[in-house]
Amino acid sequence: MSGPQRGATGQQGEGADRHGTTPGSPGAAPDSFRTMWRDLAGIGRHPSSGGYRRFAWTAADTDCRAWFEEQARARGLAYEVDRNGNQWAWLGDPAAGDAVVTGSHLDSVPDGGAFDGPLGVVSAFAAVDELRARGADPNKPLAVVNFGDEEGARFGLACVGSRLTAGQLDVERARELRDADGVSLPQAMERAGRDPEAIGPDPERLARVGAFVELHVEQGRALDLGGHPVGAASAIWPHGRWRFDFRGEANHAGTTRLEDRRDPMLTYATTVLAARKKARLAGALATFGKVAVEPGGVNAIASLVRGWLDSRAADEQTLAEVVTAIEQTARERGQRDGVTVDVVRESFTPVVEFAHELRDTVAALAGRGRPVPVLPTGAGHDAGILSARVPTAMLFVRNPTGVSHAPAEHAAEDDCAAGVTALADVLEGLACR
Amino acid sequence: MSGPQRGATGQQGEGADRHGTTPGSPGAAPDSFRTMWRDLAGIGRHPSSGGYRRFAWTAADTDCRAWFEEQARARGLAYEVDRNGNQWAWLGDPAAGDAVVTGSHLDSVPDGGAFDGPLGVVSAFAAVDELRARGADPNKPLAVVNFGDEEGARFGLACVGSRLTAGQLDVERARELRDADGVSLPQAMERAGRDPEAIGPDPERLARVGAFVELHVEQGRALDLGGHPVGAASAIWPHGRWRFDFRGEANHAGTTRLEDRRDPMLTYATTVLAARKKARLAGALATFGKVAVEPGGVNAIASLVRGWLDSRAADEQTLAEVVTAIEQTARERGQRDGVTVDVVRESFTPVVEFAHELRDTVAALAGRGRPVPVLPTGAGHDAGILSARVPTAMLFVRNPTGVSHAPAEHAAEDDCAAGVTALADVLEGLACR
Repeated sequence: MSGPQRGATGQQGEGADRHGTTPGSPGAAPDSFRTMWRDLAGIGRHPSSGGYRRFAWTAADTDCRAWFEEQARARGLAYEVDRNGNQWAWLGDPAAGDAVVTGSHLDSVPDGGAFDGPLGVVSAFAAVDELRARGADPNKPLAVVNFGDEEGARFGLACVGSRLTAGQLDVERARELRDADGVSLPQAMERAGRDPEAIGPDPERLARVGAFVELHVEQGRALDLGGHPVGAASAIWPHGRWRFDFRGEANHAGTTRLEDRRDPMLTYATTVLAARKKARLAGALATFGKVAVEPGGVNAIASLVRGWLDSRAADEQTLAEVVTAIEQTARERGQRDGVTVDVVRESFTPVVEFAHELRDTVAALAGRGRPVPVLPTGAGHDAGILSARVPTAMLFVRNPTGVSHAPAEHAAEDDCAAGVTALADVLEGLACR
Repeated sequence: MSGPQRGATGQQGEGADRHGTTPGSPGAAPDSFRTMWRDLAGIGRHPSSGGYRRFAWTAADTDCRAWFEEQARARGLAYEVDRNGNQWAWLGDPAAGDAVVTGSHLDSVPDGGAFDGPLGVVSAFAAVDELRARGADPNKPLAVVNFGDEEGARFGLACVGSRLTAGQLDVERARELRDADGVSLPQAMERAGRDPEAIGPDPERLARVGAFVELHVEQGRALDLGGHPVGAASAIWPHGRWRFDFRGEANHAGTTRLEDRRDPMLTYATTVLAARKKARLAGALATFGKVAVEPGGVNAIASLVRGWLDSRAADEQTLAEVVTAIEQTARERGQRDGVTVDVVRESFTPVVEFAHELRDTVAALAGRGRPVPVLPTGAGHDAGILSARVPTAMLFVRNPTGVSHAPAEHAAEDDCAAGVTALADVLEGLACR
């Protein structure tokens, strides 16, 4: 199935034949959607991996932000950047209150796909276009938003923009965040032309928001397995990141007897396998996807192996039990290897249960009366952060392979079009009645 | 026990009291040794790790090379750099032939210790000083040499300088070596002011060498366990580096069901543990000390885990069996994980048995008639490379902890002094009789 990236590969035209074959799908994506998708497609794309490297406050991020501002101005929307660097584009008077806000983020994980984040922002602008084309007359302000640094790829903490705005990230802690090169978040913001002194909670801005609806590509296969192009979110699993520091002793790999070694790579390896097993037994998820080794020479036994655990479960108690069990295995093996194990919880997001009333309204509007499926997700989102402060809902667009955070991440053009229509229906229902 | 780095830490003087307490130890290191050690101590030392980062053709390497040239010129030795960038300092006419050559290397592994390499070069110059102080009259040319890029820390292949000179590295392959930033060896050499077009075998130069003796800090504890300050080498274990590429599929760590994953980190972890076990069963060594992950995000399942295996054994058949067994486990687990496994042998050095006659002569001279212990080593050396072309021997200096390739690598000042005396005795015995 071709998707909206067709615009970027120069194979336009074919999609126009794919009209209305799926219930709820209005056919090919609108032209404005395709144009936006094409303009974004080249930004921060790595030529060899084919994935995106749009990290917070880098040149690629700046280009994405310039694109957002252009979209706002081209539509005559009032453009503003808040104290934490989140971008807003307003239709109507922000000060009127009870605004209906939609959007997502434009940054990416390392070598991420094209859809995670951008689909929500592009669909938001396209939905505004759709409302205008319908002649809809909102009686509440509408806004499109781009939250900064959602993925946390650079500074190791996800949803920094929305967390700061919602008062869910200590400002001092944010100031101390550093990237792999030792550049702090304030330094990075300053280099990108922002004032890092300004960061902090923004209750006044949030008080203007009556509802936030984030559209996102699905990151699993539930919609695909059920044959639905669009769904809504029920809850976000609790999730967190734990840094495991395994410390042994650097030594020569060619001369140190096995019995004289304190090799932290062995402890790490055991912990990786334990994480999988404990998660499987508990019906949870646990992943080591990032590891750093010192000194990192082929012929040197490591002195330090640092591995990051990402773990999630349907409830917080299960999650705590899984992480504790992994940690215990790590310590036991560490004793055998002469390796110390330090575990730091770098981030934690409690379970998010989206407001039931808004959830049901959104599901009904998106399905034009026949509610779209409602499903939980293991992925964190700005919507999850904001849900503690404002009524929040999410729409998901079908992902045929379920692949996410990788170049193969995909949504068919028909489904993207269905997503725009559903989002426009939701905005119209929330803001125009 | 204080070591020669005392000079670098400004605590000179104490060592002068430590005379002759150990048989074979003539007491504190000579002043010239201390001065040389102090001058080298600051080059390429990383302030936070305390280890050395002297990688081939970097600024730190250039500084080490400038130091070598200074030492040669200060002693009135004829200085030259060969086509492969190895430095030579000659006492007597190189063209006379049958030269007695000593030296080692000045580059380091990442965060390596102060002794591995530099001890052999500093001791070589100090031994020349000692011969002159004794009024020795060589009837053969003598030379001190610094072989470039022994550790292979930057381009992934060890002993590039000596391999090229000895015709044991294909020139085209050398030209294709690249560092982690994609800089090729020729580019790096050019940036350091060398002519990369010139690299290649140098049989004429090697034909001038009658014997090569490399002094090196021991990288195990055999001398310490036996109570000997100095030993000689019998053989170098065969050893090699194998790159294991584990390829799975990148995906979202928070949304991809465990049963839908193709996670190469699991295959890697299993292989790390298998390597240790197979090596233990065979009395061999196997180590994973370097790993690279793509995309390397905390919340992304890896698409690629690349791990480097360093393995060594007393004989080539055992080594081959160990590596085959590790590879087999990797492939079996890979099938279970949906992960492909590709193994590339990046380097291999066959067993080196040092020439028996020279070995026995060196052991006897170093012990002044009561031969020093003769022991094998698992570490590769330029001496091992050259042994295929010229008679070669090695001297080892006691390392009380056995730690090597790490900042804690150490040799006591007394033992360094004993090493210089032993090397001077060997040079005198080989060149002056």
